[in-house]
Amino acid sequence: MKAYNVMTRKELVAQKAELDRQFAEAKGKGLQLDMSRGKPEPAQLDMGMGLLDVLNSDSDMKSMEGIDTRNYGLMDGITEAKHLMADVMDVPAENVIVYGNSSLAVMYDTISRSYTHGVMGATPWCKLDKVKFLCPVPGYDRHFAITQHFGIEMIPIPMTSTGPDMDLVEKYVSTDAAVKGIWCVPKYSNPQGITYSDETVKRFAALKPAAEDFRIYWDNAYAIHHLYEDKQDTLLEILSECEKAGNPDMVFEFCSTSKITFSGAGMAAMASSPANLADTKKTLTLQTIGYDKVNQLRHARYFKNLEGMLAHMKKHADIIRPKFEAVLTVLEQELGGLGIGEWTKPLGGYFISFEAMEGCAKEIVAKCKELGVVLTGAGATFPYGKDPKDSNIRIAPTYPTAEEMAQATDVFVLCVKLVSVEKLLQEAVAETA
Amino acid sequence: MKAYNVMTRKELVAQKAELDRQFAEAKGKGLQLDMSRGKPEPAQLDMGMGLLDVLNSDSDMKSMEGIDTRNYGLMDGITEAKHLMADVMDVPAENVIVYGNSSLAVMYDTISRSYTHGVMGATPWCKLDKVKFLCPVPGYDRHFAITQHFGIEMIPIPMTSTGPDMDLVEKYVSTDAAVKGIWCVPKYSNPQGITYSDETVKRFAALKPAAEDFRIYWDNAYAIHHLYEDKQDTLLEILSECEKAGNPDMVFEFCSTSKITFSGAGMAAMASSPANLADTKKTLTLQTIGYDKVNQLRHARYFKNLEGMLAHMKKHADIIRPKFEAVLTVLEQELGGLGIGEWTKPLGGYFISFEAMEGCAKEIVAKCKELGVVLTGAGATFPYGKDPKDSNIRIAPTYPTAEEMAQATDVFVLCVKLVSVEKLLQEAVAETA
Repeated sequence: MKAYNVMTRKELVAQKAELDRQFAEAKGKGLQLDMSRGKPEPAQLDMGMGLLDVLNSDSDMKSMEGIDTRNYGLMDGITEAKHLMADVMDVPAENVIVYGNSSLAVMYDTISRSYTHGVMGATPWCKLDKVKFLCPVPGYDRHFAITQHFGIEMIPIPMTSTGPDMDLVEKYVSTDAAVKGIWCVPKYSNPQGITYSDETVKRFAALKPAAEDFRIYWDNAYAIHHLYEDKQDTLLEILSECEKAGNPDMVFEFCSTSKITFSGAGMAAMASSPANLADTKKTLTLQTIGYDKVNQLRHARYFKNLEGMLAHMKKHADIIRPKFEAVLTVLEQELGGLGIGEWTKPLGGYFISFEAMEGCAKEIVAKCKELGVVLTGAGATFPYGKDPKDSNIRIAPTYPTAEEMAQATDVFVLCVKLVSVEKLLQEAVAETA
Repeated sequence: MKAYNVMTRKELVAQKAELDRQFAEAKGKGLQLDMSRGKPEPAQLDMGMGLLDVLNSDSDMKSMEGIDTRNYGLMDGITEAKHLMADVMDVPAENVIVYGNSSLAVMYDTISRSYTHGVMGATPWCKLDKVKFLCPVPGYDRHFAITQHFGIEMIPIPMTSTGPDMDLVEKYVSTDAAVKGIWCVPKYSNPQGITYSDETVKRFAALKPAAEDFRIYWDNAYAIHHLYEDKQDTLLEILSECEKAGNPDMVFEFCSTSKITFSGAGMAAMASSPANLADTKKTLTLQTIGYDKVNQLRHARYFKNLEGMLAHMKKHADIIRPKFEAVLTVLEQELGGLGIGEWTKPLGGYFISFEAMEGCAKEIVAKCKELGVVLTGAGATFPYGKDPKDSNIRIAPTYPTAEEMAQATDVFVLCVKLVSVEKLLQEAVAETA
């Protein structure tokens, strides 16, 4: 089909009439589909049910170091869990604290502690007039929600195909002492599925922050969440890069098994330098007597090691790959060459990112909703929910079935076309006027 | 034996010689006993091992409301867990949020949120020059550690046999708007094992706080932790009392199953008014996508209801009662009538509180340590670790065996006697001089 932007007004009007007809038809179907959140589907969770057989009333409940996992104590995690999570992040086990079931909670906690008590002796952020964070966009809405909650000013940094625009990052970080952090999802990023290049990671490691308490908040949420066996992104390990660059304390790295075993009942971990960990533990020790070591033991025994986890993740990939492909196929078939949208083709993670024509995203999401297809709210991938171009839409293909995803994407492309045609017609009118 | 305070100097000297001899002898035994922390012993944890059989790979993982407990969502807890924890606290289920594995973490979180964001629209505490908390003493060291961590000034309130000195509480709360809270362990208090009387609870409920954001931090840690079947304390339910008194929003109540199932792997809960819960959830929803619902399901199905939990707690009581009795027997036999110490005889909870002669607690704890018996640090039961009289010592009888407890208490009473005699001799010298 002809690209929309080279259609005549007459062609556009004819196109719109046809799309209006399709829209009315689709409305009659009464669909109810949700591609809004990055949730595993039940079949993925089923893959992890063996986890529940690992421990029973006959089990030895002692960890490798001889700790009774059922009792109080051992705040930073049992050894076998530390090793497992360390291997996921490709860092030494001594750089790891294993937490409870949510890495988001660990991130919140890390920001909250910096706000109330400061980072390694620096002034607590609550005592400062202004704290700023860099936010690569599009990015993860829940990161932005945390910084917004603490009144932290968010500065959007455009993403490129190799990670955040590092010229901008370097400029802000080196010149503005109010800039205390940057949110990163460095591998299979949310929502674009981009993995930061080696050069990007090295430039991160070599930052010369104006603020002593500047930290990189490295949310390695999709470290082993590949879609393919033969095509996989790799990420340079940032802790050792920072150490080499003379910035050993510059990173807090986070990960979890939420999208490996159970989303609500996995374990989370943080990796950082000994100095950062010691500072963190000063508060942790007041905050809790320890995290759920029984669940740590369950996970460590279930997977045994990273290889066990990677084998498990292949099963997940087999379940969700067809869904990604269903979406990408429809997008390519229906929108390829029309010039009204671009999208990412990630090799892992949980999302596909769609760039509509400027000023169209909100309307597309609204129209999808009208047809019974729920998408992440337009703008959610930007700080304060404000996408200045109103063009980014996050597609989360994991929860519905592949068939449902194809159906939902049919609806999506229809709405993209319709909104784009309307937009082009408006522009034509504006030009004529 | 003659009371020490009526002994002549000569008698005291003779007594000291005999105690010195016993001390040297005890030192030779090379004991290694710990009665410092309120930890369940392994046999108690063994009682809960059936918990691990409740869920396996064939289990239906849906909660009562049809939620897949393995996936994200349902931030405030599954219905059956809410009901169970509500019944422990004797409140309606709709007043409850079920959290992760640690009620201490919930308390920290509640204080931290008040510090960063304020309570129900009031000024965040970090923006105030001065925030004060009332701290019934002796009390729980970890409560005091949290308030101290946030720079909150702690005002000790003496405990009586019916709870905190309510005249003082009323005076501070009604006249000082900087007083934002009071820490309470209302049932089988830590460390005295005192349960607040109905009148005390009613006076709490009827407080007229100067500060709109004053809250009672009601740590109901030992709600069903009785030692006896036939002798049990009862506690008036404070949420409904506060509501009756026109103070519906004045309480945050906490509890957990840490000393019911597994200390590190149970579930915690908070009960409060709808307005407080709504305010709490505004932050919670940014902080996590949800707590461990699988563990909630495991607990709810294991116990079925409060009766199941109470039956389980009888087994705990059977294990720890002999230990309490071992301590009390030795104390009575060895110190009864000597006039050098008083102690509580609780009907539940995890502690016995000992009051030594003024200025003796630190030295007693040090001497016990010399003999290989670890006690909670003297002073720990007071804000800032400072017991003005240096007399309170917390005894935690649950972790060692009854036999070990008897041994440890033998050491303890020896040290109490020795330190007391030395103290009396010093005083005699001082009087003579």
